[in-house]
Amino acid sequence: MGFDLKLYLAERKQLVEDALEDCFPVPSGLEKSVLEAARYSLFAGGKRLRPILCLAAAEVAGGSREAAMPAACALEMIHTYSLIHDDLPAMDNDDFRRGKPTNHKVFGEAIAVLAGDALLTEAFDFVSKMDGDIPPRKILAVVATLVRASGYRGMIGGQVIDLECENRTVDLATVEYMHIHKTGALLSASLEVGALLGGGSDAQVSSLKRYGHHLGLAFQITDDLLDVEGDAREMGKKPGSDAAKNKKTYPALLGITRSREAAREHVDAALQALAAFDDRAEPLRAIARYLLVRKA
Amino acid sequence: MGFDLKLYLAERKQLVEDALEDCFPVPSGLEKSVLEAARYSLFAGGKRLRPILCLAAAEVAGGSREAAMPAACALEMIHTYSLIHDDLPAMDNDDFRRGKPTNHKVFGEAIAVLAGDALLTEAFDFVSKMDGDIPPRKILAVVATLVRASGYRGMIGGQVIDLECENRTVDLATVEYMHIHKTGALLSASLEVGALLGGGSDAQVSSLKRYGHHLGLAFQITDDLLDVEGDAREMGKKPGSDAAKNKKTYPALLGITRSREAAREHVDAALQALAAFDDRAEPLRAIARYLLVRKA
Repeated sequence: MGFDLKLYLAERKQLVEDALEDCFPVPSGLEKSVLEAARYSLFAGGKRLRPILCLAAAEVAGGSREAAMPAACALEMIHTYSLIHDDLPAMDNDDFRRGKPTNHKVFGEAIAVLAGDALLTEAFDFVSKMDGDIPPRKILAVVATLVRASGYRGMIGGQVIDLECENRTVDLATVEYMHIHKTGALLSASLEVGALLGGGSDAQVSSLKRYGHHLGLAFQITDDLLDVEGDAREMGKKPGSDAAKNKKTYPALLGITRSREAAREHVDAALQALAAFDDRAEPLRAIARYLLVRKA
Repeated sequence: MGFDLKLYLAERKQLVEDALEDCFPVPSGLEKSVLEAARYSLFAGGKRLRPILCLAAAEVAGGSREAAMPAACALEMIHTYSLIHDDLPAMDNDDFRRGKPTNHKVFGEAIAVLAGDALLTEAFDFVSKMDGDIPPRKILAVVATLVRASGYRGMIGGQVIDLECENRTVDLATVEYMHIHKTGALLSASLEVGALLGGGSDAQVSSLKRYGHHLGLAFQITDDLLDVEGDAREMGKKPGSDAAKNKKTYPALLGITRSREAAREHVDAALQALAAFDDRAEPLRAIARYLLVRKA
């Protein structure tokens, strides 16, 4: 193979964190608590998967990762806001995330709500102020893509369906529909936005979106499997916590064996979507394959 | 005078509500609860002040109100999201707004958080998809203005300061700083965005922003005065409810007489900012004067 995924992810993570650090201000003034809270969650040890996928897609499409960096940061900010709001007592009521107390446990509920609001709002600032050679019309297409993926037609819609399905018997199709919206839409948008900013053709953008769709589902299924089989230390949360909250998981609906098969099918479909790309797609291929052996 | 403000406001309100109705979808699908909740607050009897100011500024600057309508809708969506989140139990914990139960009292806290998130997100969709003859670069300037006014540098920052100042002794300068951020920034942005989309010169945009700044403060002071002196039936909330929550109001800090004087000074300054404009600014002048005699 020759491609060192671990090194690649570590290097890319650092690039993304440097960019986030540069652009998100260090707290000062009377309103500093909300910025402290936003930064707390933004730098709470996320894997930076969405920005890394965005940068990779830009390169696969023939562009530079620099051009895609503001949008990559915006994706991470939107992802972070969604985690803060999802963890709230009125929602999933989680006390820990990635082994650290959740935002509202540290800053209180009011500031946590506002920190999420601020991250979502500023995400659009990052994108609207992208400079360089990107045509304004393309930036507006990126804004529209982010909205569709994160609003009621995407991530928020998925979270609502998740809430509606609690303590209710639901079928696999509904669970899949929920995941496609709740986590798949933003993952898929990460690829789409990167491909757009990298100057990809319509066919390339569409292939990378398809990769993102299958990667998202494979990611969710392996996440559910980890919750059943995983190790608390590596995951930063207790295994079995989904089942304890009566969440509808793939293992609960399909069994462990069939869930593993489904994950493999989606990884294969993700790889298939990359068939027309050259070696620049190797990081994306490696990320998809990694899902089948992930431990956290 | 000859200008009928009541009729003007009623007509403009209807135009804005038609536009909001056209663009915000009627709920369907599994995620419909969040759209029902968003629509509940969006159509809960708001005065539509921000969109009306935005449309008026576009006309004063020499443009058409049609060109400014999507941004006007976005302003109302951002305003509505902020009300939903501000009313939450963890924030101001209000049960009623404009005489109706608040969003979380009807739909529950989880859906109320998500409905606010959805309104904020979709506001950027309205703006990013503005078509017609508006140059994409100008649309991006509108996005940047909306973010600055509604994020931590504006409305969210003001809400944080408001929370920080509860049960604490604060001076007038801090209260003013809070209002300039919490309500002033978005009001001022309504004028700025309208002026931008109406094709105003830098000097015109700046004058209309200054009008918005003073109008915002006059609006806040007269709001505080109404809370002390007002009539529950006309206001849709109980008079004295700010004082009961130990909110720092102008009457509490300045006394009623000096507060009335301050309101008049800001209205005068708002009118002064319009001095260079012709009769097309008459609606904005009438709105400023009205604040001194408002009853609700």
